[in-house]
Amino acid sequence: MAVNLPPPDPHALLPVQGVELGVAMAGIRKSGRRDLLLVRLAPGSRVAGVFTQNRFCAAPVTVAREHLASGAGTRALLVNTGNANAGTGAEGLARARTACEEVAGALGCEPRQVLPFSTGVIMEPLPLERILSGIPVCLSDLREDNWAAAAEAIMTTDTVPKACARRLELGGWKVSATGIAKGAGMIRPDMATMLGFVATDAAVTQEALGRLVREVADASFNCISVDGDTSTNDAFVLIATGRGGNAPVESGTAEYGALREALAGVTATLAQAIVRDGEGATKFITVRVDGGTSRAECRSVAYAIAHSPLVKTAFFASDPNLGRLLAAIGNAGIADLAADAVSLYLDDVLVAAGGGRHPGYREEDGRRVMRQSEITVRVVLGRGNAATTLWTCDLSHDYVTINAEYRT
Amino acid sequence: MAVNLPPPDPHALLPVQGVELGVAMAGIRKSGRRDLLLVRLAPGSRVAGVFTQNRFCAAPVTVAREHLASGAGTRALLVNTGNANAGTGAEGLARARTACEEVAGALGCEPRQVLPFSTGVIMEPLPLERILSGIPVCLSDLREDNWAAAAEAIMTTDTVPKACARRLELGGWKVSATGIAKGAGMIRPDMATMLGFVATDAAVTQEALGRLVREVADASFNCISVDGDTSTNDAFVLIATGRGGNAPVESGTAEYGALREALAGVTATLAQAIVRDGEGATKFITVRVDGGTSRAECRSVAYAIAHSPLVKTAFFASDPNLGRLLAAIGNAGIADLAADAVSLYLDDVLVAAGGGRHPGYREEDGRRVMRQSEITVRVVLGRGNAATTLWTCDLSHDYVTINAEYRT
Repeated sequence: MAVNLPPPDPHALLPVQGVELGVAMAGIRKSGRRDLLLVRLAPGSRVAGVFTQNRFCAAPVTVAREHLASGAGTRALLVNTGNANAGTGAEGLARARTACEEVAGALGCEPRQVLPFSTGVIMEPLPLERILSGIPVCLSDLREDNWAAAAEAIMTTDTVPKACARRLELGGWKVSATGIAKGAGMIRPDMATMLGFVATDAAVTQEALGRLVREVADASFNCISVDGDTSTNDAFVLIATGRGGNAPVESGTAEYGALREALAGVTATLAQAIVRDGEGATKFITVRVDGGTSRAECRSVAYAIAHSPLVKTAFFASDPNLGRLLAAIGNAGIADLAADAVSLYLDDVLVAAGGGRHPGYREEDGRRVMRQSEITVRVVLGRGNAATTLWTCDLSHDYVTINAEYRT
Repeated sequence: MAVNLPPPDPHALLPVQGVELGVAMAGIRKSGRRDLLLVRLAPGSRVAGVFTQNRFCAAPVTVAREHLASGAGTRALLVNTGNANAGTGAEGLARARTACEEVAGALGCEPRQVLPFSTGVIMEPLPLERILSGIPVCLSDLREDNWAAAAEAIMTTDTVPKACARRLELGGWKVSATGIAKGAGMIRPDMATMLGFVATDAAVTQEALGRLVREVADASFNCISVDGDTSTNDAFVLIATGRGGNAPVESGTAEYGALREALAGVTATLAQAIVRDGEGATKFITVRVDGGTSRAECRSVAYAIAHSPLVKTAFFASDPNLGRLLAAIGNAGIADLAADAVSLYLDDVLVAAGGGRHPGYREEDGRRVMRQSEITVRVVLGRGNAATTLWTCDLSHDYVTINAEYRT
């Protein structure tokens, strides 16, 4: 199923000076697949991250936050798939710290200069021995041109690896921005997505990097939903190695704008790739809401549509049962919404206006659009100038199958 | 599929003095099935209702609210299935009013003494001619012992009719309370459910009736969810004909408590019957949350569990992938929730405590409970004394099938 774009060409995944990646088959959950990734960063690299708002956040999220906040700088990232190390209490924290100590010992840095990340099944003990055994394998595999293998080593129910790169010029210096992400289910990021890593060799001040990570997450990973479930392990990390030669980019400059645009291009591609590979997805749906009084209320409407099982099954069936869209809009919690001011479009087809079906709407037009694999729902609230865009997918039999059989 | 209890015995559905019911096959959506219900109320009957909070509320909801608010009293209810008359704009309102006028003409009352209700597909024109043709058939069928046929005439994707009755004594007078409801999908009532009608021949003051309808809805229909989608047509109506002989029941009296208990028994049975017949349901799940600082936060946690597609598919699979329950609890929007104060039980099995899996928890115990068709999830938040209970079901292939093929 899935509505993936063609997989990224490994040669298009630009190396980033100062970022080396190594992978291993550690047998964490299944044997014979890449499931451990080590990323080594050159000295002086700056790192900023945003993490899940889930209150049962995973042990590695807690440790990575602590280590980032220590201000010691980051020299390595350790990422495993197959086990989320979430809902694992004090023992889970201890195991995440031990893994960081092992990496620090091997690289000759401090444990707090290592950030741990995990993804996979929740509430099962992290198989620490397997991870410790895999670390030397990762070390021997470290290369700057290894982004494609890295994207593969963080997959869970993903059917394709997700990676993207951009090149740009900053003050006459050519720099690159390359990123990877994973995720297909438990996807409704709140501040970040289920593991996204983007690196640039541009030099950036720490203040500007902290602003960039929030701004680009907000415009990409925080605008997608597969199933409305915010993960325990969401993390998005932005790395700037400073090896590109440019003068450090500061907030509010033209260079900041150019870099943000390049990074936002990478993260939007990665975020959309997650939705396209959404568990069981057969349709890629863009939900555009405008004419609201605030972005927040536009987002409420967009999420009400994206999270309605009735809307999502209608998309799966290619059935223009579009009254369900009106029901979802009415269900978005906007107490003073005037139903008769709302217009609803399916691609270019005006479906509803004035509180009900538009007189010119013909079922065959709705059916034509619903048959497409890529569809834009546009809602005009008719009460202001704010707008937002969200990406989501449909709800199919395969979503149920994948999640009923996830642990088998 | 479904986890229905045995269908109600028609003889157990006590007639309510002053309430006559008549049904017809009007061919509204499909031919050869009962799809129109007329309820005639004796003069002096009191009626109170609560309705959907969906901003795209249906035309009949708007008209029924108006007619109730007029204070003219209610002499009849007209209910059709097969078409929701929602998302139908001004024309939908006009058709609902015309149907009321037709009933009023036949019964010799005012149009505002007739309350209209519709359920079925959204954003399609109400087939008014068929309804007008069906009204005389309903009139000729009016009987006090016709509750079983009435329950059948309001079904949509329901697989069984839903009805329940209780008898009680008030000041030495024997009175009855009988009700019907429908609903299987688009079920997450907010103030009321997708059509519930409960009548008693007890005499009740209008003030007490208005309080009763809110209190019993809050403890029954407002505590269920099938798919998190609040319908455009939800309505719950409580009728007191005053023919039972008792002195009118007032708020705050012992009689009020006895009547509330009987009515709450009827509505809880009807509400749970909706969940048991939830679209594609194979499991009936009770979610109990206690130890919260407020009922509102307990409800947030309960709904986060009830609305998580990942939790619901794990129940469908009988897979004790219970980390998903922790993720849902963490995702309930309680910003200061301490994960390590939370305990999670599956029936009598302590699954998680102290932020992770309980040391005594064994997967085989979880698997044993997950295999049952009725399961209680109990969450102890460990921060206060408030509690709530919610009823929901799992998410199965049949939910997707039913909703992908709803209009075919």
